Amino acid sequence: MACQLIRIMRPDDANIAGNVHGGTILKMIEEAGAIISTRHCNSQSGEHCVAALARVERTDFLSPMCIGEVAHVSAEITYTSKHSVEVQVNVLSENILTGAKRVTNWATLWYVPLSLKNVDKVLEVPPIQYAWKELEEDGKKRYEEQKLERLVTKQRNGDIIFPVFNPEPYTVGYSQSSLIHLVGPSDCTLHGFVHGGVTMKLMDEVAGIVAARHCKTNIVTASVDAINFHEKIKKGCVITISGRMTFTSNKSMEIEVFVDADPFVDEPKERYRAVSAFFTYVSLSKEGKPVPVPQLVIETEDEKRRFEDGKGRYLQTKAKRQVQMQPLTQQ
Amino acid sequence: MACQLIRIMRPDDANIAGNVHGGTILKMIEEAGAIISTRHCNSQSGEHCVAALARVERTDFLSPMCIGEVAHVSAEITYTSKHSVEVQVNVLSENILTGAKRVTNWATLWYVPLSLKNVDKVLEVPPIQYAWKELEEDGKKRYEEQKLERLVTKQRNGDIIFPVFNPEPYTVGYSQSSLIHLVGPSDCTLHGFVHGGVTMKLMDEVAGIVAARHCKTNIVTASVDAINFHEKIKKGCVITISGRMTFTSNKSMEIEVFVDADPFVDEPKERYRAVSAFFTYVSLSKEGKPVPVPQLVIETEDEKRRFEDGKGRYLQTKAKRQVQMQPLTQQ
Amino acid sequence: MACQLIRIMRPDDANIAGNVHGGTILKMIEEAGAIISTRHCNSQSGEHCVAALARVERTDFLSPMCIGEVAHVSAEITYTSKHSVEVQVNVLSENILTGAKRVTNWATLWYVPLSLKNVDKVLEVPPIQYAWKELEEDGKKRYEEQKLERLVTKQRNGDIIFPVFNPEPYTVGYSQSSLIHLVGPSDCTLHGFVHGGVTMKLMDEVAGIVAARHCKTNIVTASVDAINFHEKIKKGCVITISGRMTFTSNKSMEIEVFVDADPFVDEPKERYRAVSAFFTYVSLSKEGKPVPVPQLVIETEDEKRRFEDGKGRYLQTKAKRQVQMQPLTQQ
Repeated sequence: MACQLIRIMRPDDANIAGNVHGGTILKMIEEAGAIISTRHCNSQSGEHCVAALARVERTDFLSPMCIGEVAHVSAEITYTSKHSVEVQVNVLSENILTGAKRVTNWATLWYVPLSLKNVDKVLEVPPIQYAWKELEEDGKKRYEEQKLERLVTKQRNGDIIFPVFNPEPYTVGYSQSSLIHLVGPSDCTLHGFVHGGVTMKLMDEVAGIVAARHCKTNIVTASVDAINFHEKIKKGCVITISGRMTFTSNKSMEIEVFVDADPFVDEPKERYRAVSAFFTYVSLSKEGKPVPVPQLVIETEDEKRRFEDGKGRYLQTKAKRQVQMQPLTQQ
Repeated sequence: MACQLIRIMRPDDANIAGNVHGGTILKMIEEAGAIISTRHCNSQSGEHCVAALARVERTDFLSPMCIGEVAHVSAEITYTSKHSVEVQVNVLSENILTGAKRVTNWATLWYVPLSLKNVDKVLEVPPIQYAWKELEEDGKKRYEEQKLERLVTKQRNGDIIFPVFNPEPYTVGYSQSSLIHLVGPSDCTLHGFVHGGVTMKLMDEVAGIVAARHCKTNIVTASVDAINFHEKIKKGCVITISGRMTFTSNKSMEIEVFVDADPFVDEPKERYRAVSAFFTYVSLSKEGKPVPVPQLVIETEDEKRRFEDGKGRYLQTKAKRQVQMQPLTQQ
Repeated sequence: MACQLIRIMRPDDANIAGNVHGGTILKMIEEAGAIISTRHCNSQSGEHCVAALARVERTDFLSPMCIGEVAHVSAEITYTSKHSVEVQVNVLSENILTGAKRVTNWATLWYVPLSLKNVDKVLEVPPIQYAWKELEEDGKKRYEEQKLERLVTKQRNGDIIFPVFNPEPYTVGYSQSSLIHLVGPSDCTLHGFVHGGVTMKLMDEVAGIVAARHCKTNIVTASVDAINFHEKIKKGCVITISGRMTFTSNKSMEIEVFVDADPFVDEPKERYRAVSAFFTYVSLSKEGKPVPVPQLVIETEDEKRRFEDGKGRYLQTKAKRQVQMQPLTQQ
């Protein structure tokens, strides 16, 4: 059973040029995903649970959304493993004056059901019915792939962002930014942890500030790499969201974003890395057309390595997109 | 064509006992109504327009909604006159853990299409197709009735609320309250006037404070009488929302709410009465059961007259409800 | 150890002319202060606690901030007494398109650590290390001064604001305003009392409405006098925030603001005065330049006395500022 969210875009959802923040869209996508997967995981009798976001696959923002447009967010469960649910979400943008609709996003999210009695315990997921056997096999393949990738990225997460004094323009230190947020009641589920969508919205906000500082123009989110949620962020934490530029192509910028949680009241736990991801932004002219971005100035060996890694991701995505576009253009 | 809004209820949507504010629900109802009627009025070629709320018919809150539940708000156009659109909206509340759904509201709203070039000009509404001829005739009857009622209430609107010094408990002066609100960008449509839903949410907030001051318990909205929007409220206004108790029955309180707008920046216009309505609240015990409310203490002739009027509305509604309940139980 | 908050300014943070509300800035300052002082007070083993705002020293708004700019709020602990923490905060405004930064505020706040087990119990503060002995001595002097002032202002607090019928333009009664606010979950800390920053934001809102009603132009906060938080405001209260103009100079207006709390659910406690302060506003032309404000019309002896008191504060501040400016211009 599908779940559809509809909402009109307000000035607060957008930047001053009127483009809706990528983070606002990610937050709506996650809300639809959380509703459908929580509903599904409670559809059989047994212990009650809430679905927590574990991973978001790479997501492209195909076309910018504007203030006054109506967003239609549709979610559907496409695969279930023993302990996780895959949800596919698409977002349409409707201009209610002209009636025109555009697809703005497709996204795939993975959720894990946590027991309401003990949010550290993962419950079992009721299986779904597949219309064709192939759908189940394809889902299983996606499941295995993301499981492997989650393991790999968990190890990468020791890195931190050092402040730089008097940085030169266009260097990494020049645009890097950190934001601190005290988790409040309306950021959380009823069960005391932060909604995945709230975290993604803050990540997009930091990435946007880094991008704007670098190129000093109107910027919009073009895509987000896979995001893994390694640990829940609990109520009462202070979270630090840090972003730094890793790579620039001719017309895009890649920004790495980290989320660290400090459980400073109640718990004697240490600060931990909760999430990390890569955001890609493009720079727009006043007419809304993509314009060249200043080249990132590399100063250290680490920055050089990260630039090369970013270039690798850029080329890989470009190649994938060309392959994906072919069947579409042949339709 | 129907329009459905789905949203999960957050701590910010509710009071500290966890009951969603009636105003939050009214705001969602109005958003669904504004989307569907703006879309319909732009469905034919011609001047673009935006639908402005003109009237909400009497609305009952059949069952309270709680934090963590998912609200489903469905809107449908049920009648069109030359210059107005009737929208019917129903609200379901879904507990996604148990799967249980309850109807919480039915509402009927009237919209008027305003030209985008000149928001003081009303445009024509494209006619809808009716499945049966009777539907059109019934709609026309409702249209004529509300038109008449709008005229009548417009005349009632000269009244203001006088402050009282050292009021005795349970008098009208003891609980009456006023709230001022500076209209901000996110309260408004792109075309510079306040969303009807924003106004209704503030009205419910004041009515709730009056009710809580009177009975000092957890209170919830039980119903709202017809609300007429006599004039648009423009960006940059200060609005004053005032509430006073008019009537108490054994287990309910009726509160009259006025909205006055002061167009203080840029314009030399005088303060004007924009909206007025009656809200009915019930008092709940800690277990969520309705409990008796303290009797309102009447001190003046005007208060007595308003009490009698309120009693009239109360008895009329009670009688109507008994009639409406019969066909339902016979179905 | 410092704490830095970074946030982009949104349409909802500002008035319709695009100037960020002083209250929004005060709220961010308080959030940074609450994070750093709660973190410090929990840095030693022992009972866990949360830092509650006790006092904010006089704060100047040196330059207006605009929508789209990035606010940088940096907090540092500068003194600790046995039961209180002094935090100094500065705010920079960055235009991320041009890279230009301006200092917009300096502020000094005092916090008190409350036990998490019993929020009415004040705990001990771990001492900080001072780089020079003089820093500790200066801090101690500031601590003694504020302690004395807190005592004095507590006594002043019996005053209330009386409504006036049909007031003449430019009188005190003409612009005085009251706002009621039902404390909701997101106004509160996790421990059930209202964030100091939320209260200050509401106070600035009322002061802004009084100022706008008086001069009917675009107005901005210029400074806030010392604010003392006499009592915590608990979850479930209704708070009334009232403001009245006390003094006008050629280009500024002073507004006195009171906060009264009605603990109406659960508790039989009486209404109490929680906070009071003086806000100074200036009036701006459409080009953003300060313009003359209409002279306040005095009608009663009390108003005259308050006008003279306000004039005293105005002249004292003016004198202080001239002294402070000297070393700055010589640097």
